[in-house]
Amino acid sequence: MTFLEMLQGAQERNGSMLCVGLDPEPKRFPGALKGDAGRIYDFCARIVDATADLAIAFKPQIAYFAAHRAEQQLEKLVAHMRSTAPHVPVILDAKRGDIGSTAEQYAVEAFERYGADAVTLSPFMGFDSVQPYLKYEGKGAFLLCRTSNPGGDDLQNQRLGSIEGSPLLYEHVAKLAQGPWNLNGQLGLVVGATYPVEIERVRAIAPRLPLLIPGVGAQGGDAAATVRAGWRADAPIVVNSSRAILYASSGDDFADAARAEARRTRDLLAASRP
Amino acid sequence: MTFLEMLQGAQERNGSMLCVGLDPEPKRFPGALKGDAGRIYDFCARIVDATADLAIAFKPQIAYFAAHRAEQQLEKLVAHMRSTAPHVPVILDAKRGDIGSTAEQYAVEAFERYGADAVTLSPFMGFDSVQPYLKYEGKGAFLLCRTSNPGGDDLQNQRLGSIEGSPLLYEHVAKLAQGPWNLNGQLGLVVGATYPVEIERVRAIAPRLPLLIPGVGAQGGDAAATVRAGWRADAPIVVNSSRAILYASSGDDFADAARAEARRTRDLLAASRP
Repeated sequence: MTFLEMLQGAQERNGSMLCVGLDPEPKRFPGALKGDAGRIYDFCARIVDATADLAIAFKPQIAYFAAHRAEQQLEKLVAHMRSTAPHVPVILDAKRGDIGSTAEQYAVEAFERYGADAVTLSPFMGFDSVQPYLKYEGKGAFLLCRTSNPGGDDLQNQRLGSIEGSPLLYEHVAKLAQGPWNLNGQLGLVVGATYPVEIERVRAIAPRLPLLIPGVGAQGGDAAATVRAGWRADAPIVVNSSRAILYASSGDDFADAARAEARRTRDLLAASRP
Repeated sequence: MTFLEMLQGAQERNGSMLCVGLDPEPKRFPGALKGDAGRIYDFCARIVDATADLAIAFKPQIAYFAAHRAEQQLEKLVAHMRSTAPHVPVILDAKRGDIGSTAEQYAVEAFERYGADAVTLSPFMGFDSVQPYLKYEGKGAFLLCRTSNPGGDDLQNQRLGSIEGSPLLYEHVAKLAQGPWNLNGQLGLVVGATYPVEIERVRAIAPRLPLLIPGVGAQGGDAAATVRAGWRADAPIVVNSSRAILYASSGDDFADAARAEARRTRDLLAASRP
C-alpha cells in the first residue's frame, strides 16, 4: 500500500481531513501530568486513543520530544498508534534537509527507528537532499512549500525573475514536487492555512498532490476557506490542528475535551467541502 | 564570551581553520569497534582527543546519532569535548528550521540539552524560524546559504528578478544574515567548499560573518581555493572535514591516522592564507 492510499483509506474510514498534531509541552499538561516530561507518552497516548476514529493522520512534532530527551517515548507512542489505530498514517514532522549521505541517516531515523509513514522535509538543499527518502517504497514526504508563519514571506515569496507572472519561490517548489522530483508519487506539499489564496495557487500547479496544511486552530487559519481552496475529490488534504486539540481543557477531562474539539474541527472541515 | 570570540580564540590557540566533523558510521569503524553502535561515543571521543589541539571547532552531525538511537552518547560526547577541550567550540550540525514555537524547542535541544555553542539552521522558513536561537546570548547560528551538494543549485541558485546583477537566492540569504537578521552578531553562513567563486560572492556581501565551509576532503572541495576565497583576518572561516579524518585508517591506528590527516589539512589550510 502506498502512503497516498493509506491516507485515502483513513480519510474515507474516519470521514476526516483532520490531522491531529502532537506537540507535547509538559508545562501545559493537565492535572497530575503537569510539568512531568516523563509523562509525555501518557499524555499523547490518551489524545491518540480519544481521536483515532476522527483523524486522517497523526503528526508528532519531533522537536517537542527532543527538547525533553523523550525519544524513547516517541518510539513507544508511534508503536502505540500502530497497534491501536493501524489505519491512521503517522507523519513525523521533522523538516529535515541535508546532503544525501546525511539524509540517508535521517531517513533511517524517520522510517526505521520511529516507523513513520511519512516525514516533512525542507527543500532548501535541493533534490539530492530529498531523494534518499524516496527509496523507501510506500513512504511519503511532504516538502515545505508555503509555510504558515510570518517569516514564510522572507524566502518563499521571493519572485524568481521580474516578469509579471514569473513564479515565486514556493511556486517553483510546487512545480518541482509535482514534476521532476516526484519519482514514484511519494511527494506532497506543506502549505499554511493562513494563506488560502496561496493554497489555490499551489493547487493550480499541483492538482493531485496531497497537501499538509498546518495553521488551523491556535495559529488562526480559516478552516472553511482552507478546504474550499485545497480540497479535491482525488487528492487528500491533511489539515493539522495541534494546540487547540491537545490543550482543549486543562482539567482531568482533557481527553474528552480533545475528542470534542477534534470532532468539531473534523465536522467543520467536512461541511466546508464544495 | 561571544561565540565569535570563542571561535577566534580557538583559531589563534590551535593555529587552525579546520573543523573536525563527527559523522560516526559504525559500519566504517575500525577494528573491534566495527559495526557497534554502542561504541559511537568511544570512537568519537578518541577522534576528539587526537585532534583537540588542531581544530578551530568540532561539528557533530546529529543525524548520525539519531539514526542509531545514540542521543545519550552525543550528550556524553559534548560533555567530553567541554571537559577536555573547553577552548574548542562545538557546532551542532542539525539544520533545523521551523515556526517560532517549535524553533524554541529545537533551541532547547541544541543549547540546553546538548550544550552546543552554535547550531546550523535552514533559513527557508524565514526570520521567525531563526530568532528563538538568537535569544541565547553568546551562542551562534550558521544559516545555510550555498551548500556543497549538487542539489544546492535547485533553489539557492535561482535568480530573484531577471535583471542582470539581481541577486540569487543564496545572495539574498547572505544579505539577510549580514544585515537585518543579525541582531546581536550571532549569525554566520554555511557555504560549500565545492564552489570557491560563490564563497567570494558571499564574502563580498558579508565580509565580517564567520563562514562554515563543508566539502573539503571526501566531498572534493579544493582547500587552497577555499581559503583564498573566504579567509579574512577579522572573520574566521571554519573549514570542515569529516570522513577524510574519521576514516583515515581502518586499523587500530585510526586515532593516530586521524591526527595525521587533521594536521595535514590544518597546515594546508594555514599555508593557503593570502
